[in-house]
Amino acid sequence: MQPKQVAQASAKVLQSYLTYQAICTILDELSETNLPQSLWLRNYTANHNIQNGEAFLEELMTENKEMVLRILTVREYLAEQVLEFLPEMVQTGINQANIEHRKHLLERLTRSPLESPRLPETADSEFNLNDSPEP
Amino acid sequence: MQPKQVAQASAKVLQSYLTYQAICTILDELSETNLPQSLWLRNYTANHNIQNGEAFLEELMTENKEMVLRILTVREYLAEQVLEFLPEMVQTGINQANIEHRKHLLERLTRSPLESPRLPETADSEFNLNDSPEP
Repeated sequence: MQPKQVAQASAKVLQSYLTYQAICTILDELSETNLPQSLWLRNYTANHNIQNGEAFLEELMTENKEMVLRILTVREYLAEQVLEFLPEMVQTGINQANIEHRKHLLERLTRSPLESPRLPETADSEFNLNDSPEP
Repeated sequence: MQPKQVAQASAKVLQSYLTYQAICTILDELSETNLPQSLWLRNYTANHNIQNGEAFLEELMTENKEMVLRILTVREYLAEQVLEFLPEMVQTGINQANIEHRKHLLERLTRSPLESPRLPETADSEFNLNDSPEP
């Protein structure tokens, strides 16, 4: 896929994930304020596919209109609160994880196929871990 | 969950999703350049859980170090290309979807419990669909 298609697919996944998080937030609230409703929603989500947030909401509409409105409101709020921070959080997460994985790869490469006594594990510091090897 | 925790959880999901998209991109490339490797990777991903991208990469490291490096490079590239656009795309997607769901809810409310002839479907235009009813 091209980056544009990846962006569209990622946006869709994130939209459904925020819908799921809105439902989790509401379940938390209901468990303290309205236990029967909390149990009803927990049971409903356990028996309905939540992977596609929009399809889930359309189906829920036939059962509990007020709950749909509540989910819409909460996911709007969550979107406003979290979306702006995600690009930097994910970029930082990927950069740090990539450094870790490359470090582990270099550790493995220096140890295989033999555990050579000439290449102690501390030799990792000789490599520049920020260099991206060609794929 | 609080918005901060939702942001952290969302960032983790997005990081794993970009890892998955990097693998899809590499599968596309390999299917044209190296069919045996493409088949190997397709088979490997079919038999290993890809939900947690970092755990997947750590496990793949024991089988195919070059493939890990390739995935790291491609997901870095995808992150740089798509992340900055996601907040606006998701916010717009949620806003538009919420308008659609509220419209459907109002359509249902005007039709139930009886299909009243005094409230034709075209009466929807009388509602301001941008108003957010209380949940």
